Amino acid sequence: MINIAVLGYGVVGSGVVEIIKKNSVSISKKAGQEICVKKILDIRDFSDSPERDLFTKNADEVFDDPSIGIVVETIGGIGAAYKFTKEALSRGKSVVTSNKELVATHGPELLKLAKENGVNYLFEASVGGGIPIIRPLNRCLAANEMYSIIGILNGTTNYILTQMKKQGKDFDEALKEAQMKGYAEADPTADIEGHDACRKIAILSSIAYNEFVDYKKIHTEGITKISLTDMKYAESMDSTIKLIAISEKIGDGIMARVSPAIVNNSNPLYSVEDVFNAIVVKGDAIGEAMFYGPGAGKLPTASAVVADVIEIVKHWGTCGSYDWVVKDGGNVIDLGDTRTRYFVRLKVEDESEARKAVENTFGNVEWIKACNVSVESEVAFVTADGLEKEHLNSLELLRENKAVKQVANTIRVLD
Amino acid sequence: MINIAVLGYGVVGSGVVEIIKKNSVSISKKAGQEICVKKILDIRDFSDSPERDLFTKNADEVFDDPSIGIVVETIGGIGAAYKFTKEALSRGKSVVTSNKELVATHGPELLKLAKENGVNYLFEASVGGGIPIIRPLNRCLAANEMYSIIGILNGTTNYILTQMKKQGKDFDEALKEAQMKGYAEADPTADIEGHDACRKIAILSSIAYNEFVDYKKIHTEGITKISLTDMKYAESMDSTIKLIAISEKIGDGIMARVSPAIVNNSNPLYSVEDVFNAIVVKGDAIGEAMFYGPGAGKLPTASAVVADVIEIVKHWGTCGSYDWVVKDGGNVIDLGDTRTRYFVRLKVEDESEARKAVENTFGNVEWIKACNVSVESEVAFVTADGLEKEHLNSLELLRENKAVKQVANTIRVLD
Repeated sequence: MINIAVLGYGVVGSGVVEIIKKNSVSISKKAGQEICVKKILDIRDFSDSPERDLFTKNADEVFDDPSIGIVVETIGGIGAAYKFTKEALSRGKSVVTSNKELVATHGPELLKLAKENGVNYLFEASVGGGIPIIRPLNRCLAANEMYSIIGILNGTTNYILTQMKKQGKDFDEALKEAQMKGYAEADPTADIEGHDACRKIAILSSIAYNEFVDYKKIHTEGITKISLTDMKYAESMDSTIKLIAISEKIGDGIMARVSPAIVNNSNPLYSVEDVFNAIVVKGDAIGEAMFYGPGAGKLPTASAVVADVIEIVKHWGTCGSYDWVVKDGGNVIDLGDTRTRYFVRLKVEDESEARKAVENTFGNVEWIKACNVSVESEVAFVTADGLEKEHLNSLELLRENKAVKQVANTIRVLD
Repeated sequence: MINIAVLGYGVVGSGVVEIIKKNSVSISKKAGQEICVKKILDIRDFSDSPERDLFTKNADEVFDDPSIGIVVETIGGIGAAYKFTKEALSRGKSVVTSNKELVATHGPELLKLAKENGVNYLFEASVGGGIPIIRPLNRCLAANEMYSIIGILNGTTNYILTQMKKQGKDFDEALKEAQMKGYAEADPTADIEGHDACRKIAILSSIAYNEFVDYKKIHTEGITKISLTDMKYAESMDSTIKLIAISEKIGDGIMARVSPAIVNNSNPLYSVEDVFNAIVVKGDAIGEAMFYGPGAGKLPTASAVVADVIEIVKHWGTCGSYDWVVKDGGNVIDLGDTRTRYFVRLKVEDESEARKAVENTFGNVEWIKACNVSVESEVAFVTADGLEKEHLNSLELLRENKAVKQVANTIRVLD
């Protein structure tokens, strides 16, 4: 029998306890021995819970107990969670977590500490909720050199964008509805500004390319500037708008960004709707594979945590964590030096002059007409593939042109 | 260093050797030690190959070599492959294979033999080509009780159906094209009659439900009766037709079948086209997840084989195979006792009498009109959900009715 402790009895932590109880027979069979929750650490009071005998407010009861081999950290954040994770690993206990913030911030240090102590630090649940993605990337695709990851990694923003597209709601209205349904938090900043997706693509990239990708170096834009008009333009291009997290291995560097993008209906990510997540990975042997499922939620996320626990028990002593090399000077390529196509909407004083100016600065572009929406004094186009910094220069030139009143929006086009 | 031998230097076998050579650095890093191809067994002559020094026609050179720890079986079929697999496992060598026929036929015996000899028998590549599905099902979703699998598991038939839908080709024409492109074999029976998909759903079900599902007990229909007219009817229902392999845990039994099915565009399998495969799995914690990718091909399939090899090397001695309980009397529920909706097309003598007869036998049905195709003296409908055997009885009654000339086709509707 292996004893585990759960730190933090919130949504995911309580899900972990629930699943281990409910599916104990099949879990024991797969792990090769029984897995038992011995302690639950939480500063709140749970004296009415059926698990009340397991609760403690004293962390030492977990760390000083040599019979506890695995600690599940579902506290979140980088305060107590960081301190407790270091403590557990130092004391020779493996740690399993769903805490993307902690992994993205202190991953290399914690993985090193785990290795030094001959234990594991696993975090399948930190990306894509219940979708198996980290282990498939690292293990099942181990024969590949991976070179690209493209994902819809945030359920909240995908729900909002789906509502905008399908129900014609504007951003504020769709956000309010997401909050009402519990899909968005009272302070939705981390989701709608792309920070959550940024941490997740940093973790996936670190796994896929075997070197640490620092989330703070990843260019990140949210979806707050996306309007219903943008969505209508996308529709007229047989496309939709998604918050896309992307990274690509380019030579010795890594291109990575999080931003809204126009996604064509020929792309498998086009039809990923509501709170679902999906991740397309590309490798030199497999070509392309996609993983799709619930990106969040109590039981899906908890099921990923428990799978990591089972993995550690099954391969006790040989499970093996990841090795994240931290490159001096970083590895993320400056965004200006990466390539993309841009969709651009201009408010104009003089349409025909503005079109001339666009073709003078951007060269050949594809002119776009919006369907089912009246736009006045506006032109829209998609640029050719080019360097981000050159696109920005061209936009600057347009802004200075008298025929152009304003750059209403620019959105990258996913190729 | 771990030495391996490759049995059968065909498409997949040569892909395995190619990937191990090409990605040796990253593969060694992930496996924890170098993996080296020491012998290749093939009765054909490869004296011009750059690997010519590795070839042997004598199997004993593999089995008698104690330095070879893992045998890759990419011979196919259940003749020599079966004999060699038993020999290797008995001699304490782990075996990795892409051979779905052998796994579906002799899986329980070979897994037992592996266990008795403390070695592994792994077969990720036997289903879904390069798509990671067997290990994710068994490991990453280990915390779930799985209760359903629905997949597009055969690339050849999916290519043919995609051509019928998109290019308006009829079955024979689309099959010929698939053969010309190398997507279908000269004798396409195993693909178009559903036998290939049947073996794959049997393997996936055995993994998901932890008990052997005998492919010979699974009701299997191919796509040879699907016409362009059927496809047009499906389109008018915002749907398409796919060869669907499905299994479901129902009480102590398992419902399993392979047949064409009408798939609505709200289903993620709807947009899986050409030679791609996809598998939707459902479990009590995760809800639903989908895995998508290339279902065949030299390098994708070989990459799945090599991933299994890496897994064995990494977890030498603790990797652990599956345990397939063989239930006395079987576990597959009689098809007649399972439920479905049917799409039915009738050739009729008298349309209004036929419609009355339909409603007398099937009760309330949904009448379907085909778009963009002229059908004369024909009515079509979708039944309510009901037992297969009751649907068949009702069809028999209709056949006896004078207003009905012929049951032109029946296709299940995927819910």
